[in-house]
Amino acid sequence: MTDVAVDEQRRTRRREGGGRRDAGGAAEGIGQQPAGQARLGFEPTRYVSDDQLEAIHLASLEVLQEIGVEVMLSEARDIYRAAGGSVDGERVRIPAGVIKAAIATVPAAFDFHARNPERALRIGDGYLAFGTVGSAPNASDFVNGRRPGNLEDYRGFLKLAQSFNCIDFVSGYPVEPIDVHASVRHLVALKDMALLTDKPFHAYSLGTERILDGIEIARIARGVSREQFETEPSLFSIINTNSPLKMDIPMLQGVIEMARAGQIVCVTPFTLAGAMAPVTVAGALVQQNAEALAGIALTQLVRPGAPVIYGGFTSNVDMKSGAPAFGTPEYMKAAIVGGQLARRYKVPYRTSNTCAANALDAQAAYESVFSLWGVAQGGGNLVMHGAGWMEGGLVASFEKFVLDCDLIQMVKAFLQPLDFTRDALGLEAMKEVGPGGHFFGCAHTMARYETAFYAPILSDWRNFEQWQQAGSPQASDKAHKVMRQVLDAYKAPSIDPAVAEELEAFVARRTEEGGAPTDF
Amino acid sequence: MTDVAVDEQRRTRRREGGGRRDAGGAAEGIGQQPAGQARLGFEPTRYVSDDQLEAIHLASLEVLQEIGVEVMLSEARDIYRAAGGSVDGERVRIPAGVIKAAIATVPAAFDFHARNPERALRIGDGYLAFGTVGSAPNASDFVNGRRPGNLEDYRGFLKLAQSFNCIDFVSGYPVEPIDVHASVRHLVALKDMALLTDKPFHAYSLGTERILDGIEIARIARGVSREQFETEPSLFSIINTNSPLKMDIPMLQGVIEMARAGQIVCVTPFTLAGAMAPVTVAGALVQQNAEALAGIALTQLVRPGAPVIYGGFTSNVDMKSGAPAFGTPEYMKAAIVGGQLARRYKVPYRTSNTCAANALDAQAAYESVFSLWGVAQGGGNLVMHGAGWMEGGLVASFEKFVLDCDLIQMVKAFLQPLDFTRDALGLEAMKEVGPGGHFFGCAHTMARYETAFYAPILSDWRNFEQWQQAGSPQASDKAHKVMRQVLDAYKAPSIDPAVAEELEAFVARRTEEGGAPTDF
Repeated sequence: MTDVAVDEQRRTRRREGGGRRDAGGAAEGIGQQPAGQARLGFEPTRYVSDDQLEAIHLASLEVLQEIGVEVMLSEARDIYRAAGGSVDGERVRIPAGVIKAAIATVPAAFDFHARNPERALRIGDGYLAFGTVGSAPNASDFVNGRRPGNLEDYRGFLKLAQSFNCIDFVSGYPVEPIDVHASVRHLVALKDMALLTDKPFHAYSLGTERILDGIEIARIARGVSREQFETEPSLFSIINTNSPLKMDIPMLQGVIEMARAGQIVCVTPFTLAGAMAPVTVAGALVQQNAEALAGIALTQLVRPGAPVIYGGFTSNVDMKSGAPAFGTPEYMKAAIVGGQLARRYKVPYRTSNTCAANALDAQAAYESVFSLWGVAQGGGNLVMHGAGWMEGGLVASFEKFVLDCDLIQMVKAFLQPLDFTRDALGLEAMKEVGPGGHFFGCAHTMARYETAFYAPILSDWRNFEQWQQAGSPQASDKAHKVMRQVLDAYKAPSIDPAVAEELEAFVARRTEEGGAPTDF
Repeated sequence: MTDVAVDEQRRTRRREGGGRRDAGGAAEGIGQQPAGQARLGFEPTRYVSDDQLEAIHLASLEVLQEIGVEVMLSEARDIYRAAGGSVDGERVRIPAGVIKAAIATVPAAFDFHARNPERALRIGDGYLAFGTVGSAPNASDFVNGRRPGNLEDYRGFLKLAQSFNCIDFVSGYPVEPIDVHASVRHLVALKDMALLTDKPFHAYSLGTERILDGIEIARIARGVSREQFETEPSLFSIINTNSPLKMDIPMLQGVIEMARAGQIVCVTPFTLAGAMAPVTVAGALVQQNAEALAGIALTQLVRPGAPVIYGGFTSNVDMKSGAPAFGTPEYMKAAIVGGQLARRYKVPYRTSNTCAANALDAQAAYESVFSLWGVAQGGGNLVMHGAGWMEGGLVASFEKFVLDCDLIQMVKAFLQPLDFTRDALGLEAMKEVGPGGHFFGCAHTMARYETAFYAPILSDWRNFEQWQQAGSPQASDKAHKVMRQVLDAYKAPSIDPAVAEELEAFVARRTEEGGAPTDF
């Protein structure tokens, strides 16, 4: 770890200090670590050589130039044309020079603001930010089973998001509240997000009306002027391309409105190798890169310097069934090489904590940890679906949320640099103990034992006999208990009554107006 | 990945080709990958800076010079004294210059031979070799539960070791066959190892007689002269120091006899931070390094150029109970920095796949994958306890063996480099499919889909409904089924009848002589 990294780590600790002072809903007594972003103290893995990285880069430019991208929104086509792209019907071909010029203005790092200033995040600069599961159509827990998403479950996940220190932001609707009519769902859901949590959040790019509503709700929650808001990113939106090589109208409207308002766009091609992308990982990465560059360029053409994130979501499908697979070796490779690509362009990088498991068993754990391996060694900055994602995103699981928080805490503890002071090197302790002794009672141990090691939320380290006498619990049993405990202890974060009132009034007015169209 | 790495990977593929031709007991129909060692195609993670690494190095030299090591065997003390160490009773203090001169002759890499030449391993050079669980006192499976180790279970694990292509060697007795009398246990167990598998194996350093018997059994199994055997490492032995800073007589006898015979010594300090080592990870690493250097130096003083491995096994204890913890963030850091130390001295590096779980649940999986993360990103070469280890080593689990083989296969698939041919970059496929299409049926996919992605042994990727209809199986259920299937299909590898006869005769004679003393 370099000296610079250590300096920065101190800064991280200050952030943690900030988090610690804030009592906004953090659950106690379950083995939580203090809030504060983790930061990579070592160079991310260079899985491919510089030449190989250049081959992906050049091939993706060739794709944009020769095949082009189908751009469904005429306003977006006009923007590409004005910058030097060639438009043929809906097909837009973009020369390498246009891409290069456009992405030159991308900020390498920026702050992501929250209504509680202590929840602000640094995106880029080697920092990691972990979000909740997002966009699952179903929810599940061990008592009530698996069911379509609803508002109560949606709120439950927001409460978990607020209560766990390791969750830095809300990744969208953890579960879709489908019992709320689609025309006003975004109003109800975003108001809840702003009231039940004080962490940074996401709005969906589902057409101009919804994203403008999201932008306004984020601004009101922050209690700042439009002018200040535009210079302080306070909302993000995931833009999934319709891979291969297509961008639909609602998403393009989102890119344009978010960039125009100085808010964060995360361009994430959904490039499943063998389905929506070539069956080779290198080919899928070429396509991912082409689509990401096209979207990132658009943000900069709308507003040079607009905050934007390079999203990687390349995985593979099960070739027997066509079902998406996650946390696979191919996923890991794509996550790490995606990071190399993002760093090549000096754009913050988004990855995810994914799995395809149906049960909270060994599979759920190994697929998630393999994903997190890709996240951390790939230098991921914004980590979507950090906690609660199962079944390839079809389910938000309350118990998986807790398991993932333990995994995230372990990754963060792994990234916490070692102490290299003379005292930490332990020479005096070794002299005191001497050959053949033990360190249990020595002064060096006594001064540190309470905080020396990561204390897990779930891991059961009792010996077999004690564990068996306790009923042979599995990690998932403990996850359920902790989840109940945290939900029962939830307290909403405080909010300025004037801000809350303005939020309510805005949502009431927009609801009265009928919300947003549902015919897209 | 550099060109050199790719060249070497071709060499690895040739190894795999070799493995494929060999039908020696490999189980079919369970999703096995071909045999062949994985190789790291990227630089291992530099978790600490060069300066920090140097601080550990210098502190460990200070420990050896100022505190020294308790060396219980007079013959070993004489060797250190002759090289320039100072001896005071049993305490040996070793100046930095003596360590430096001694370790200068360590080979950076070597071949580890097996009785089947196609099973030979490369130790070092970035290659990974995965072994079985070793030395567990208990065995368990879902039907018969947890019981003290016995010969039948011991043989069962050898059969699994032989049947799974991803298992490169046997790490010692997977489970201790305690129903065989201690005086002859090593004879019975090593004969079984040589007959039931044709992969490289381990003998315990439990005094001169046992290790000499192990050396002779390995030589007979290889069917080579003593002279050839001494230049072709064909056996390895783990030397655990009695941390802190102590080496006992049976282990020291093992170091001396193994090095003298040109066989592989793996010096592994058992440095649990907070128990047998300082409570800080940096301090535990200082002690690990001091003990490892002392042991490695001894091998070279006995026989310059003798094959030796730097073993890292630093983990932490649960400070509530004193129980060892594994697969923790501290374990990961120690595994990765241990690799940096080993590479500093240009010695091959041993790590482990560990966990402390009592059940084959999410905890078993996440602790193991975190361990494997440390193994791979730390540049581990010899991976002990690769498959089957549970409860911090107290149990060898038949089902965990299968789970771990799936995990090892995934790590190996992750390390398999990407194809960067023009065709693999997929431009033609993207042109064929075009924006908005899909790749399921295109020529590029059809030509590759059967082998494009890793096909897991255990992961259940069916959708929820199909999975539920199948009885909602957990990964552990499938592990049990696969384990039974593999054991039922086991076939012993062929052996030259003359070699088998010589083995039997040697073991019969040594048994008649009474085996080895049991009063140590």
